Amino acid sequence: MVPKVVFGEGCFDQLSTILTSQKQEKAPFIYLVDDTFKNNTQFLDRINLRFNDKLLFVSADEEPKTRQVDEMVKNIKTEFTYLPSGIIGIGGGTVMDLAKAVAIMLNNKGSAADYQGWDLVKKKAVYHVGIPTISGTGAEVSRTTVLTGPVRKLGINSDFTPFDQVVLDPQLTKGVPKNQWFFTGMDCFIHCVESLNGTFLNAFSQSYGEKAYELCLEIFLGDSLSEEESRAKLMMASWHGGMSIAYSQVGVAHAMSYGLGYVLGTKHGVGNCIVFQHLKEFYPKDVALFEQMVAKHNIQIPQGICKDLTSDQMDTMITVALGMVPLWENALGTNWQEVITPEKLKALYLKM
Amino acid sequence: MVPKVVFGEGCFDQLSTILTSQKQEKAPFIYLVDDTFKNNTQFLDRINLRFNDKLLFVSADEEPKTRQVDEMVKNIKTEFTYLPSGIIGIGGGTVMDLAKAVAIMLNNKGSAADYQGWDLVKKKAVYHVGIPTISGTGAEVSRTTVLTGPVRKLGINSDFTPFDQVVLDPQLTKGVPKNQWFFTGMDCFIHCVESLNGTFLNAFSQSYGEKAYELCLEIFLGDSLSEEESRAKLMMASWHGGMSIAYSQVGVAHAMSYGLGYVLGTKHGVGNCIVFQHLKEFYPKDVALFEQMVAKHNIQIPQGICKDLTSDQMDTMITVALGMVPLWENALGTNWQEVITPEKLKALYLKM
Repeated sequence: MVPKVVFGEGCFDQLSTILTSQKQEKAPFIYLVDDTFKNNTQFLDRINLRFNDKLLFVSADEEPKTRQVDEMVKNIKTEFTYLPSGIIGIGGGTVMDLAKAVAIMLNNKGSAADYQGWDLVKKKAVYHVGIPTISGTGAEVSRTTVLTGPVRKLGINSDFTPFDQVVLDPQLTKGVPKNQWFFTGMDCFIHCVESLNGTFLNAFSQSYGEKAYELCLEIFLGDSLSEEESRAKLMMASWHGGMSIAYSQVGVAHAMSYGLGYVLGTKHGVGNCIVFQHLKEFYPKDVALFEQMVAKHNIQIPQGICKDLTSDQMDTMITVALGMVPLWENALGTNWQEVITPEKLKALYLKM
Repeated sequence: MVPKVVFGEGCFDQLSTILTSQKQEKAPFIYLVDDTFKNNTQFLDRINLRFNDKLLFVSADEEPKTRQVDEMVKNIKTEFTYLPSGIIGIGGGTVMDLAKAVAIMLNNKGSAADYQGWDLVKKKAVYHVGIPTISGTGAEVSRTTVLTGPVRKLGINSDFTPFDQVVLDPQLTKGVPKNQWFFTGMDCFIHCVESLNGTFLNAFSQSYGEKAYELCLEIFLGDSLSEEESRAKLMMASWHGGMSIAYSQVGVAHAMSYGLGYVLGTKHGVGNCIVFQHLKEFYPKDVALFEQMVAKHNIQIPQGICKDLTSDQMDTMITVALGMVPLWENALGTNWQEVITPEKLKALYLKM
């Protein structure tokens, strides 16, 4: 779990003070910042670069990749004599996952792809800080960093993955485009549905999952919140949703969404939504609620994205999705293979 | 915050594995265990003492004291050449607070009393693990350890106070006497009421506080839970309640309960209940719910405990309670002194 967190409107400005105690002489802080902030000088001016600190803009247009991590690590090691004092990720799930992975790989040999899986990381990561600027993925609190590698899309799940410090400043999520706000928020809602309806559920995950789920309903279906309240509550929903799945698992939507992501590069949030609308069979009550949210916020979910797939692509998509064994077990129990066959998955994908 | 936690019925048996990675040669693990387990050989057999590890039984009859901490630290330093590999607290709030304080004081000079306050601890504590065997105080998750010192009852609040690891095994709370179960559970309920109705409230604390509050209602007023579910949910209520107040504050009941504890040694949980029943003026809806819970579980709350106080004792009680400035500010705002006068407090105490 994340050992330190600050929360509140404007708390981003505590960052300099927080970092002071972590500064090692000659060792820079490296800031990975979502490139949507590239022209936001007002925000960039609030980042205090000192001495040899470095700011790198990162595009979140694509899902994060193991080779992208390897390249960043190589560049940092080439440019600086000393390992960084810390890595600070400022952005959405993509940027936060990159920051976590880079921090790990600065202290571990080989390629990030070698560590995709559970508890394969041997050495402590470099100090790393997560600062979400969009809410829903739970990447700020999770013990994974989901990466697309040469053979799979899978997280580096380890005790060394979670951030050492998180800064939760709801102000930073102002100005997120509506679609992105919705799709990323739905990542949280869908997490929670999958966790709460899963066979791995326990009282720990349930308490977090229920709270996040309630907050999502309040935010996306209610009418009583101010924009400021809504931003703060969505930030907390993301946090609790992330905690819920840290101690249970996700389910059908995430397994299928990983398939879309691997083959088509579909971003995780929108991918979950594309899948979820077709999962009435598995989550009837919650798909109905989801449809209400889509209608209320007038969101267009992309359609027909699988209609032009080659049969090789379809096979790969199915293989990737079926490979997510713990997710299927959680969703459908140990006999999941009787319910989910390659044919069944193909039929579902063809609807999307 | 606590960086590592395991949860689940029977997860206590993971302790040996967890400790293996922390073992330093020749440096013992010291177990502080609530002395209610003294004759429970079945449980004690599950604690694997190895080499020079030591188990100390601790009485939780009285609230923990700074001089008790100082004495334990002195004894440990006298007996062992090396600082312990870790301190493991197994018990309720008293034992967990002692474990946290001993872990801190093994690495910091002077008396525990020197560190009562906020952020006075300079050096990292020895590795410490919290294992609650009763639920409600939130001591397993908080960044404080409340101690009665020579001049005040106040916590050692610091970044080094929280446990490095917590083991949440609801099975361990089996067999807690009914009164203690109720009073300790009410500590959580009252935390949450104070946090949710306080002026320091924010979306972070609110989300945790609301979840813990809901769980308390389900446990203490509902009829649908099995004993096993109820134990697991109360453990989570305690956890979330502790998180809620870590980022906000408690209020009137805790301030007045500290007065009772300081002068009469009243245990924290029962003290809160003694006070809370008389706080209709401040928390009307929740005092009514509290009365329902008391009636449903047929609990006798001690009466008349202040009627024989000397006037010196009463003055001290009032001074201690009024000294809890942040609690009053949270409960009543910056003008709290206009509402709470020594006379008002005296009148309230005389009802108890």
